[in-house]
Amino acid sequence: MDPQHINPKNLSHRSDVTVWNGVAYVAGIIPPDNSLSIAEQTAEALAIIDGHLAAAGTDKSRLLTALIHMTDVNRDVAEFNAAWSAWLTPGRLPIRTCVQAGLQGSAYFEVTVTAAMPE
Amino acid sequence: MDPQHINPKNLSHRSDVTVWNGVAYVAGIIPPDNSLSIAEQTAEALAIIDGHLAAAGTDKSRLLTALIHMTDVNRDVAEFNAAWSAWLTPGRLPIRTCVQAGLQGSAYFEVTVTAAMPE
Amino acid sequence: MDPQHINPKNLSHRSDVTVWNGVAYVAGIIPPDNSLSIAEQTAEALAIIDGHLAAAGTDKSRLLTALIHMTDVNRDVAEFNAAWSAWLTPGRLPIRTCVQAGLQGSAYFEVTVTAAMPE
Repeated sequence: MDPQHINPKNLSHRSDVTVWNGVAYVAGIIPPDNSLSIAEQTAEALAIIDGHLAAAGTDKSRLLTALIHMTDVNRDVAEFNAAWSAWLTPGRLPIRTCVQAGLQGSAYFEVTVTAAMPE
Repeated sequence: MDPQHINPKNLSHRSDVTVWNGVAYVAGIIPPDNSLSIAEQTAEALAIIDGHLAAAGTDKSRLLTALIHMTDVNRDVAEFNAAWSAWLTPGRLPIRTCVQAGLQGSAYFEVTVTAAMPE
Repeated sequence: MDPQHINPKNLSHRSDVTVWNGVAYVAGIIPPDNSLSIAEQTAEALAIIDGHLAAAGTDKSRLLTALIHMTDVNRDVAEFNAAWSAWLTPGRLPIRTCVQAGLQGSAYFEVTVTAAMPE
């Protein structure tokens, strides 16, 4: 069997999602509009992740890991966390690594997740 | 079957460990006390990881991956590495990615690992 | 069964590859020679990854994830991407997270990947 590559986009050098052996891997999400507040951008980014998880056949209640890169973690993390925590399924929290790192273009943050597939 | 979420903490937006399909994922560990040397802090962080791996039912001899973020890699990595290498099981080394990145608060480093579950 | 650790090197604190449960994890690759162009260094790094994937018994057509750290993402990413895209198997693209982060020594970038094992 081959791993599944969902929406491979040669122009952006990556797939939106890969699926293998019971795990869905979701690409770093760049929120599209910095004229919005961090809370609004986070909601937008998480909606994109919801869509990618749905395309793979799973959902946020099955998250395993989150890797979050923010361009200014001390400025933005509190507002990000409020939207992040509201989005998560209580008791079904992924592990999380959250660090400050430069991002391409003008993005404020990027979120990469993995989720368990249903059995 | 559902993935296992060990010690999900809504206040810190993450679980300590998630387990799925034979793999344990352990959260980014923030060492608690910068008044200690890097060697002492590393030993403390690795003891926390030992505890999380034990909670999942596995141990450091089954590590698969390590992702290490340090706020000043050139200053701290040698001292970190001495404690890291002493902790690892010889011949059972994980892959490792070690980069410099800003961390929340005053932490000097953060370690995220995955480990194989026993069969 | 135990996870497989390929070429564990105590001096560099890591294995080249670990294999478990149908997934190969390949260590952050440091390209060896900054006198080369980014395109040449990328080709070199990707050849090292090809070798590590082959040692595990898989190949780049089965990539699941890529985590790319660059010391100057805005300066180097276009040249990196050209070599990266030429290397990938069309339609079999991994997800990708690409951020700016400091690296040990004088390296310009580091690439960490995972790949599905054949069944």
